Amino acid sequence: MPYNPANELFNQLMKPYNLNLDHSGIKGERIAARLFEQSKIGFTKDGGVKRPGFSEEEKQAKQLVKTWMREAGLKVREDGAGNVIGRLSGVSDDLPAVASGSHVDSVPNGGHFDGPVGVLSALEVAESWKETNYQPKKPYEIIVFTDEEGSRFNSGLTGSMAMTGSGGLSAKSQLNDYNGDSFEKVLHNYGSSLEEFKKAKRDMKELEMFVEVHIEQGKKLEQDELPVGIVSGIAGPAWLEITFTGEAGHAGNTPMIGRKDPLTAAGAFLQKVEEFPGQVSETAVATIGKLNVSPNGINVIPQQVTLNVDIRDIHEETRDRLLKLITQEAEQIAEKRGIGIDMKQTTKIQPIPIKEELQNKLAASISKHDLQPSYIPSGAGHDAMMLGREIPVAMLFVRSKDGISHNPKEWSSLSDIVTTVHVLKEFIEGVMDE
Amino acid sequence: MPYNPANELFNQLMKPYNLNLDHSGIKGERIAARLFEQSKIGFTKDGGVKRPGFSEEEKQAKQLVKTWMREAGLKVREDGAGNVIGRLSGVSDDLPAVASGSHVDSVPNGGHFDGPVGVLSALEVAESWKETNYQPKKPYEIIVFTDEEGSRFNSGLTGSMAMTGSGGLSAKSQLNDYNGDSFEKVLHNYGSSLEEFKKAKRDMKELEMFVEVHIEQGKKLEQDELPVGIVSGIAGPAWLEITFTGEAGHAGNTPMIGRKDPLTAAGAFLQKVEEFPGQVSETAVATIGKLNVSPNGINVIPQQVTLNVDIRDIHEETRDRLLKLITQEAEQIAEKRGIGIDMKQTTKIQPIPIKEELQNKLAASISKHDLQPSYIPSGAGHDAMMLGREIPVAMLFVRSKDGISHNPKEWSSLSDIVTTVHVLKEFIEGVMDE
Repeated sequence: MPYNPANELFNQLMKPYNLNLDHSGIKGERIAARLFEQSKIGFTKDGGVKRPGFSEEEKQAKQLVKTWMREAGLKVREDGAGNVIGRLSGVSDDLPAVASGSHVDSVPNGGHFDGPVGVLSALEVAESWKETNYQPKKPYEIIVFTDEEGSRFNSGLTGSMAMTGSGGLSAKSQLNDYNGDSFEKVLHNYGSSLEEFKKAKRDMKELEMFVEVHIEQGKKLEQDELPVGIVSGIAGPAWLEITFTGEAGHAGNTPMIGRKDPLTAAGAFLQKVEEFPGQVSETAVATIGKLNVSPNGINVIPQQVTLNVDIRDIHEETRDRLLKLITQEAEQIAEKRGIGIDMKQTTKIQPIPIKEELQNKLAASISKHDLQPSYIPSGAGHDAMMLGREIPVAMLFVRSKDGISHNPKEWSSLSDIVTTVHVLKEFIEGVMDE
Repeated sequence: MPYNPANELFNQLMKPYNLNLDHSGIKGERIAARLFEQSKIGFTKDGGVKRPGFSEEEKQAKQLVKTWMREAGLKVREDGAGNVIGRLSGVSDDLPAVASGSHVDSVPNGGHFDGPVGVLSALEVAESWKETNYQPKKPYEIIVFTDEEGSRFNSGLTGSMAMTGSGGLSAKSQLNDYNGDSFEKVLHNYGSSLEEFKKAKRDMKELEMFVEVHIEQGKKLEQDELPVGIVSGIAGPAWLEITFTGEAGHAGNTPMIGRKDPLTAAGAFLQKVEEFPGQVSETAVATIGKLNVSPNGINVIPQQVTLNVDIRDIHEETRDRLLKLITQEAEQIAEKRGIGIDMKQTTKIQPIPIKEELQNKLAASISKHDLQPSYIPSGAGHDAMMLGREIPVAMLFVRSKDGISHNPKEWSSLSDIVTTVHVLKEFIEGVMDE
C-alpha cells in the first residue's frame, strides 16, 4: 500500500488521545475518522487541503457531511447558496431552533481543522444524543455554510451572507471567480441559480441562536495551557490606506533640516499605531502589515510611502475610538512635517459582541471540566459574525498549535477537540432546557 | 528649419545673461556655445543627454574638448583609461602642475551641466589667459576624467581611480557593462587595453592640487540666493543593510502585548536615524531610502523588514561616530523587542576633507565679488574625492535650479557659471603665484 499522508492524520490524532474523554455518547475516534475522511477531499501534495467554495471538492465534503447527518437521524436539505442544513426535531418542534456548525471549504493550501472541526463538533453532539436517546426540547440544526474562506471570489462568508440576506450580496454577485467566471455562472455550474441563491435568505426568527466551534488561529490558549476558550466578541476590522507624500532628494546633498521625508513620518506614525490600542481597550489591536516606499532607492530620500492600517476591536465604540485616534495622528504628523497626506477607509465591518449571559453559560460548562474559563476576542471573521447581526451567537475556540492556520501545519489535538465538544454539548443542552 | 531643442539651450542660457560679467578675458557666450555643442552629443528625446563612459558619445564629447584645448594652446594627450589631459606650460615647467577639470559622461537621461560645467570652466580660465597673455608660473592641467557617473558598469569614478591607482580597480575590472561585455572588452572596443589602462596611474607628485567646479545638486545656494559656494568637504557614504526578523501573525488574532513586529521596530529605528545626525555634526546626514516588508499583507503582522541606511559626513570621525550610534541603536531595538537582527556594512568610503587654507582662498575670491562665502558639504562623490586621497583638492559649487540633477531638467544659469569661473580663475592665479 503506498504511503498515504492523509491516513497519517488519523494516526496522529489518535495516538496521543486521552480515551477518558470518551463518555456521554461522545467518541474521539469517530471525530478523528471523520476529519481523516474529510482531509482526503482536495488533499494537497504539501499535506494540506484545497477545497474552494462551490468547487467539486467542497461539494464532495458537504456530501460526506450529509451522509453523516442522515446517519445521526437529521433531515437534510441544501439551500440555493449551497448551505447544508441538517435538522433534528425537537420535542416542541415549533420553537426556534438552536443551531451549530461551520464550513468545509478551505483556502488554497489550508489545513484540515479550520471549518471541519466546527461541523464535526456539531455532528458529534447529535451523535451523542442518538447514543444516549436524548431528544432535545427545541429543534437542533447543524449548518454547513458554503464558501466561508472566500478563496473563490476573494470575498468570503458567502453562505452566511446569503442566509441572513446581508447587504453585501449585490456587490458579491458582481464578482468573477479565479477562472474569470461570473458569480452567476459559478452558481449555474454548481447546480443553482441567482434566483435560487436569493431564496437562501431565511426568516432568522426560525433560529434562537447559533454557536460555532472553531480553531483559535492564535496563541492565547497555548500560552494559557488551556484546550478551549470562550470567544468574547468578534472584532470588526476597519482598514485605512494612507499615502504620505514628501520631497525626494539626494541622501547626501540634502541637509537633515528642512527634509520632507515621508518614511520618517511613517516611522513616527508606526510608533503611535503601536501605542494607541492599549490606551483604548485590552482587546483592541492595530497593525501596519503593508508598506511600500517609492522610489525605494538606497541613496534617495523617499518621495512617497503608502501603508495600510488594520484596526480591530470587539466593541464598535472602542474600535471607532481607536480609528479616530489613528486618523488624527496621521493628519497631525503630516501637518507637523509639512508633508502631504491622502487617507481613505477601505473597509469598515461592524464588530459583533457576544452576550455576557451566553459567555457565562459557556464558562459554567468549562468550569465543570476543572478548566479555567479563558476569554478571547476573535480577530478574524467567521460565519457566526454574519449571523450575529441578526441573532444571538456564541463561539468556542479550540487551542491551535503555534497559532498557525491557513496552512498545512494547522493542528489541534483530538483531546482538545473532544473537550470542546463536551463543553458545546452541555452548553446546547442548557439552552435546550431553558 | 526643424525645431531643435538643443539650440534652445544656447538661447535659454544667453537670454538672461549679465554681460557685465564678461571681463578679464572671460566670455559667457563662449561657454554657452560650448555647452550647446556638447549637449548635441547624445541628446535625448526628453531634452536630456545620454553619454555613458567609454561610449561613442563620450568619445565625441572628449574629442570636442581636445579641439578646444588645442585652440587654447594646451598640449593634449589621452591616457589608457580614456582620461584627456591638456597641459599648458608654466614659467617654471618643472614644478608640480595645478589642475582643474571634471567629466563629460552622463547618466542615461541626464542633464547638460553635471560634468561639462567643470570642464568648460577650467577651459575658460585657459582661454582668458590666452586673451590677456598671462603665462602661469606653474604648469596648468585640464583633466577630463572618463566614466565618472558609472552608468556603464554601475560603478563610477573610473578615470580618477585609474589615475590615482585606487585599490578599487581590481574589483572594477571584474565587472560587465550594460551589454554584458567584460571590462577588458569595453576597453578594447574603445581602443585601449587592460595593460594601457593600468599605465594611466600617475605619480601624483606631478600635481600640486586639483580644483573642480561642479553643479551643486542640492538647494542650499538657491536658499541662500548665492551663485557659487565653497565645498567644505566631500562626504563619504557608509551603507548599512539591516534585516529585522520578527514573528508573523494574524493582525486580528494576535494581541498587542507579546507581538514581535519587525515593522514597528523599524519605526522606532527610523525615528532615531532621523535624530542622530544633528547630535553628531551640522553636516552629518542619515537616510533610510529603501525599505521592504515581507510578506506585506494588509492583515498580516510582518515577518521581516529589510532596510538600507545611508550615512554620510565630510569628517571621517563624525561619520563613523554616527555609524556607531545607528548600529548600536539597531541592535538595542532588536534586543529590547526580542526580534532578530542581521546587519551588514555594504559600503564605506572615506570622506575627503578640504583644507581650510584652500577654502579661505576661495572665500577671499568670492568676497571680492561682493558675495557671501557659503560653505556646503558635498554629499555626492566626485572625481575630486578620488584625487583628494592623494593630493590637496578644492571644489566650487554652482547654484542648481530646484536642486535637480541627473535629469533633463538640470539647470544652472550662465551668469552663475561665469561668476564661478571668475572665482576659479582668481583662485588658480593665487595658487600659481605662491
